[in-house]
Amino acid sequence: MDNFSFYSPTYFAFGKDSENRAGELVKRFGGSKVLIHYGGGSVVRSGLLDRVKASLNAEGIAFVELGGVKPNPRSGLVYEGIDLCKKENVDFILAVGGGSTIDSSKAIAAGCLYDGDFWDFYCGKAHIEKALPVGTVLTIAAAGSEGSPDSVITKEEGMLKRGTGSDAIRPKFSILNPALTQTLPAYQTAAGATDIIAHLYERYLTNTKNVETTDRMIEALILAMVNETPKVIADPNDYDARANIMWAGMMAHNNSCGVGRSQDWTSHGIEHELSALYDCAHGAGLAVTMPAVFTYTMKHDVMRFAQIAVRVWGCQMDFANPENTAKKGIEALKGFLKSIGMPLTFDELGAKEEDIKKLAETATLGSGKIVGFTELSTEDVENIYRLML
Amino acid sequence: MDNFSFYSPTYFAFGKDSENRAGELVKRFGGSKVLIHYGGGSVVRSGLLDRVKASLNAEGIAFVELGGVKPNPRSGLVYEGIDLCKKENVDFILAVGGGSTIDSSKAIAAGCLYDGDFWDFYCGKAHIEKALPVGTVLTIAAAGSEGSPDSVITKEEGMLKRGTGSDAIRPKFSILNPALTQTLPAYQTAAGATDIIAHLYERYLTNTKNVETTDRMIEALILAMVNETPKVIADPNDYDARANIMWAGMMAHNNSCGVGRSQDWTSHGIEHELSALYDCAHGAGLAVTMPAVFTYTMKHDVMRFAQIAVRVWGCQMDFANPENTAKKGIEALKGFLKSIGMPLTFDELGAKEEDIKKLAETATLGSGKIVGFTELSTEDVENIYRLML
Repeated sequence: MDNFSFYSPTYFAFGKDSENRAGELVKRFGGSKVLIHYGGGSVVRSGLLDRVKASLNAEGIAFVELGGVKPNPRSGLVYEGIDLCKKENVDFILAVGGGSTIDSSKAIAAGCLYDGDFWDFYCGKAHIEKALPVGTVLTIAAAGSEGSPDSVITKEEGMLKRGTGSDAIRPKFSILNPALTQTLPAYQTAAGATDIIAHLYERYLTNTKNVETTDRMIEALILAMVNETPKVIADPNDYDARANIMWAGMMAHNNSCGVGRSQDWTSHGIEHELSALYDCAHGAGLAVTMPAVFTYTMKHDVMRFAQIAVRVWGCQMDFANPENTAKKGIEALKGFLKSIGMPLTFDELGAKEEDIKKLAETATLGSGKIVGFTELSTEDVENIYRLML
Repeated sequence: MDNFSFYSPTYFAFGKDSENRAGELVKRFGGSKVLIHYGGGSVVRSGLLDRVKASLNAEGIAFVELGGVKPNPRSGLVYEGIDLCKKENVDFILAVGGGSTIDSSKAIAAGCLYDGDFWDFYCGKAHIEKALPVGTVLTIAAAGSEGSPDSVITKEEGMLKRGTGSDAIRPKFSILNPALTQTLPAYQTAAGATDIIAHLYERYLTNTKNVETTDRMIEALILAMVNETPKVIADPNDYDARANIMWAGMMAHNNSCGVGRSQDWTSHGIEHELSALYDCAHGAGLAVTMPAVFTYTMKHDVMRFAQIAVRVWGCQMDFANPENTAKKGIEALKGFLKSIGMPLTFDELGAKEEDIKKLAETATLGSGKIVGFTELSTEDVENIYRLML
């Protein structure tokens, strides 16, 4: 096992009606003037935004608002948020929404305390050393941004989708009310679940040996997702299943199951180009990407894929030919993703074969490769995109 | 799933040589005058204490020392520590040792900022609202105190062993170097592993329905313990196995796998009387206690015991008679504990049949019962002790 540091100081308020604690928690973590950052109509229509405002009002906390975050959040709104916060002397960012809103909030929080262009953090020119405190009220189980140090933003110019990470942007608190996710359409619920499963697979595909504890934890969380997701597709109001998914989504990405081991992140890298170019749901893109990546890289460590096939997907171990078992595990993943309504091909996603060269080039921009579980050249990445046709 | 709050802000520095970060981390978390609290000779003989002092010296941090913590740590040394800290204006407690040293440190940290008798926190008269910051350098994977809000102390008068908990005594940082545990005798290693497994079983035995995510996480951590513990019994220098156990021990007790569900703690309650009276290793006491408690309470929810028998112990499900499967799971646990050298009976532990009445009375002192997975009267507890004969 590799040496590591782990620090996850986010306070989680989990359960029914927990959004009513927003004011109390902003106060506890030192906020006095809040930017409420959110996306589109659903948090307004559902009355969630009003409940959050009422909670802030009850504690006498002033706030300004900035809505309009889109899936695959854009740099334009981040600049707008930074300007607004500086003008209004905001000292706390409260994200009300999903991963996109939280990632946008983290970018604003870091940009407010930085003299240069916030994009420096995303293109690798600078590291986030400080940021305004961020709190979240989560409305979809997916990105895990509620408990992670990560943020992904898309720059409109060139549609470049890039990520950054720093403990300084870990949320101070996250409010997780599973009931808030009950109104999500089935497709978005399934895309969120796929994103969570991808966070687990990306950590599972490691080159570090003898990491049984984190292996088992990852397997456990995938098993929970495989058991609980079909329940909420069948009955969107299954609160307990929503709750299981929401906690699994946080645990999948706060990195407690990824410490001390190399991780992959190839599927995320290859998918990012799809959602940046076609504006598809990130989880849907991952459903198309993961099986292709795993099929292409499987031979790098067949036993790893056989292990997850046996332990998670219940496949019989083919001791004479473990590759058969490894393949069956990938097929089982595909079958599961299809069963919850996810796409498996370029066509189903709305992606185009003629873009493949460009996609592969953008995905490997700079270094000319993607390094994770294996090292992939631009040509390898092109081959992987072709497996999705 | 029940509503809950979860807050685990401890910074973990994990891996080889991580004790050399002690000075840096004390400084990071605001310490300027440290009490180094430790147990007996091993941290001195191994040179660990010298390395920790060198690390503090390198950062220019002053310190005083208090050794002498014993297993099942006593109130007498806590009073001594509180007096010393007040006299020396100590502002940070650094525990160098195992669960006993950390628990004693937490008690001192809370007692220093409290006008009354620190025992008030342990006998239920008061709740810990504030404490000096505590850091730890862990030397045995067992109690999970390095990432928990808990502390257990034994009062010499009457040998009363009682616990308390508060976020105020969660360590600010914990240094986890698995190599430090390589010099432990096999018996202590096994007793530590048993304590970890008990922390998982106590959380598993819940009356809350539909808690698949935390069920799976608990099963995963027990599976990891069952795989890794025999490796370190066979080869004490197996660093990776030690590392897997150390991380599992922290995860087992920081409560991320116990949130939103009722928990048991019956085995701990019944065991505490054994280690208080006979001064046996807590883990060894748990090895004797757990199978007796589970056998006695199994009928309260046979399917729960069948589930862990199938998922963890690899038992075949007897669909016609799940109780058979449940029993086989308990037998498998006993077989495992025996295989790592743990005692299974009163005799092996050095406990005496004639003390059973007194043990049962002390275990149920006050309320006349133990309430957890089930409700047990003094008579029930007496019956459970008799199952250990």
